[in-house]
Amino acid sequence: MSHEPLLIGLDAGGTSTRAVLTDRGGRCAGYGVGGRGNPVSAGPERAASGVLDAISAALEGTGRALSDVSTVVAAMAGMRAAGDSDWLMSRLASAGFGGRLVFESDLLATYFSGASSSFGYALVSGTGACVIRVKDGRIDRTGDGLGWLLGDRGSGFWIGHAIARAAVQDLDGNGARTALTDRVLAHFAITRTGEEDSGRPRVLEQLVSELYSHPPIELAALAPYAFEGADAVARGILTDAGRHLADTLSAVLHGPGPLVVGGSVLARPGPVRDAFLHRLGDDAAGLDLRPVGDGAVGAAFLAVRAAGADPGESVRERLARTVAPLRARAGAQRREP
Amino acid sequence: MSHEPLLIGLDAGGTSTRAVLTDRGGRCAGYGVGGRGNPVSAGPERAASGVLDAISAALEGTGRALSDVSTVVAAMAGMRAAGDSDWLMSRLASAGFGGRLVFESDLLATYFSGASSSFGYALVSGTGACVIRVKDGRIDRTGDGLGWLLGDRGSGFWIGHAIARAAVQDLDGNGARTALTDRVLAHFAITRTGEEDSGRPRVLEQLVSELYSHPPIELAALAPYAFEGADAVARGILTDAGRHLADTLSAVLHGPGPLVVGGSVLARPGPVRDAFLHRLGDDAAGLDLRPVGDGAVGAAFLAVRAAGADPGESVRERLARTVAPLRARAGAQRREP
Repeated sequence: MSHEPLLIGLDAGGTSTRAVLTDRGGRCAGYGVGGRGNPVSAGPERAASGVLDAISAALEGTGRALSDVSTVVAAMAGMRAAGDSDWLMSRLASAGFGGRLVFESDLLATYFSGASSSFGYALVSGTGACVIRVKDGRIDRTGDGLGWLLGDRGSGFWIGHAIARAAVQDLDGNGARTALTDRVLAHFAITRTGEEDSGRPRVLEQLVSELYSHPPIELAALAPYAFEGADAVARGILTDAGRHLADTLSAVLHGPGPLVVGGSVLARPGPVRDAFLHRLGDDAAGLDLRPVGDGAVGAAFLAVRAAGADPGESVRERLARTVAPLRARAGAQRREP
Repeated sequence: MSHEPLLIGLDAGGTSTRAVLTDRGGRCAGYGVGGRGNPVSAGPERAASGVLDAISAALEGTGRALSDVSTVVAAMAGMRAAGDSDWLMSRLASAGFGGRLVFESDLLATYFSGASSSFGYALVSGTGACVIRVKDGRIDRTGDGLGWLLGDRGSGFWIGHAIARAAVQDLDGNGARTALTDRVLAHFAITRTGEEDSGRPRVLEQLVSELYSHPPIELAALAPYAFEGADAVARGILTDAGRHLADTLSAVLHGPGPLVVGGSVLARPGPVRDAFLHRLGDDAAGLDLRPVGDGAVGAAFLAVRAAGADPGESVRERLARTVAPLRARAGAQRREP
C-alpha cells in the first residue's frame, strides 16, 4: 500500500473538522481533528487553519506526507455552489498538495457515513435541521435547512427557542406552568423574587433582557433541558419537534430506503423519535434508521468515489471499522492534558 | 386663560413624537409633531431633539413659551422604571422649562386616549403587541410586549414573520401554495426562474439570503400583504393573529370595561378582528372596543392628572375634540412642501 496514492476525506464543521486518510479500498491510515473548518462561519483563514490542522494530525506518525495524497474531498455546509476554492487550495498547495480538491455537501457525507446505496435519505437535526434525498449517489432533493429565523423546524435551536418562549409565557401568566422555567432561570443565574413591576414579576424583565442580550442562535443551548424535564410542556415541545422533522422528511419522501440520522435531537430514543415515527405512520416501515456521529466516514467514502472508484457497502463498512480505533485513540489523546 | 399655567402631554414613539399643549380643563391650545422620541431606540440626544421639536411646534403661534408650562408628562415605552430623566430634563431646562417632568407608560397614554374610567384595558398591536389592565387609573397588569423573539404574538412583526415562513415553505415544497409567495418575492425584487440547486428552486436560496440580510424586526413590513391577499394561507395567518391577541387579553381579563385598541393590526374590521372577538366568546360582550390613532390625547389627559386635577370623561372628550382641528392643520402643513 505504501506506493498507492492516498485520499483524504474532510468533514469540516462549524465547531471542528475531522480528516480521514484512506486508500482506495477504504483502509483508513490516519485520523485527525482540527478546529472550525467552515469559511462561511469561521472566515476563510481560520477555516483553512482548522482543515490543515486536521490533515496534519491525520498524517502524523503514518510516514506519509500531503504530497502522497492525490484527492481531497472537503464536505461542508454552504459550499455546494463551490465557486471559489482558493481559500483552501492555496493553503493545501503550500503544504505540498498537488492533487485534486473537491467540495461536497456535508449532508451527503452524513449520508455515506451510514449508507452506501445510491438511493436513500439523510436527516440532520443538530443546531439546525435539514433533510436530503439521495438518488444515483447525488443530492436529488433538499428540505428545510432554512436557518433559525425561517425554518430549522425540530432542530436544537427550535427546541431551545420553544423552551425560552414557554418560560417567559409561564412567568407572564399566559402559558402553562412548567419546570422548564426554573431551569431556564438557573441557566442564566437569575433568582426568583416576589417583586413586581407594572403588574408582572420583575424576574420576567430580567430574563427577557438576558435572552435579548445574546445572539438568537444561542437559544439552542437550552435544548437539553427539554430532554431532562419530564413535565407536559417539555414533552409537548419534543413531540412537536418530532412531528416537524417527520413533515420535513415527508416532503422529500419517495419510497423506502436507508435513513441516515445525524445530530443529537433524533439520535436518541425518546419523545422526539417516538413522535417522529408515529407521524410517519406506514412510511416508517420502509425506512432503515441509522444514527451516525458525524460525516467523517462519508467524507472518506466520497474521497474514494472522487478518486475514480465505485465504492460500495464493503468499502463503507471497512472505513467505519478501520477509522474506529484511530478515532478512539485521537479522542483519548485530546482528553489528556 | 392667559395667566393659567399650561401643561404638555408627550406621546413619544419610536418613529415620531406628538406634543399636546393644554390647560387643566382639557382645552387644547397647541399641537406639534417631532421626530423619534424614545431614548432607548433613538439614543438620548436624538430623542430629546425629537421631543423638543414637537414642543416648539405645539407652542408656535400660541404666544406662550415653555416657561409658562408647569407640567410635562412624557409617555413612552420602557420608561416605567423611570430612573434617569436627565437626558430630557436638562434640555427642557435649557429651553426655559422650570416645572415638573413626569414619565408615564405609552400604554397608559393609549388607554386614556380612548377611555377615562379608572378600570379598563388597552391592547396595542403595531410592530409589537402588548396589553395592560388599568385599575384605579394605574397599570395593574401587563401582558406580552415580550419582543419579536419571545412574544409580540399577533403583532405586525408576528404576521410578517408568518408570511415570510409561509413563502419559504411554499418554495421548499413543505407548505401550502400561497399567493403570498409572489408578493414576498416582488417585495424583494426577486424574479422566479426555473433553475434548481441541490433539488430546490434557486429562487428559494435568493429569498432566504435576502431575508437574513435584514434585521428580523423588518419582517413587520411584510404584514400588509396578508391583509391584501385573500387566499387561505393569508386568512389563516390573520386568524391566528386574532386568536393570539385574544389570548393575550384573556390572561389579564378581569371583568367588563372599555378596551382601547392601538396599532393598526386590530384597528380595522376584518379577519383579525373577527377571530379576536370569536375567540373571546362571551367575554367580548363586556368589552367596549375603542380604536385610537395614538396616545396624544391620553398623554395630555395624564398631564392634567399630574397637575393635580381629577380629570373625567368631559376632560378627555374636550381634549379629543379640541386637539382634532389642530391636528388636522398640522397634518396638512406636513404634507405641504
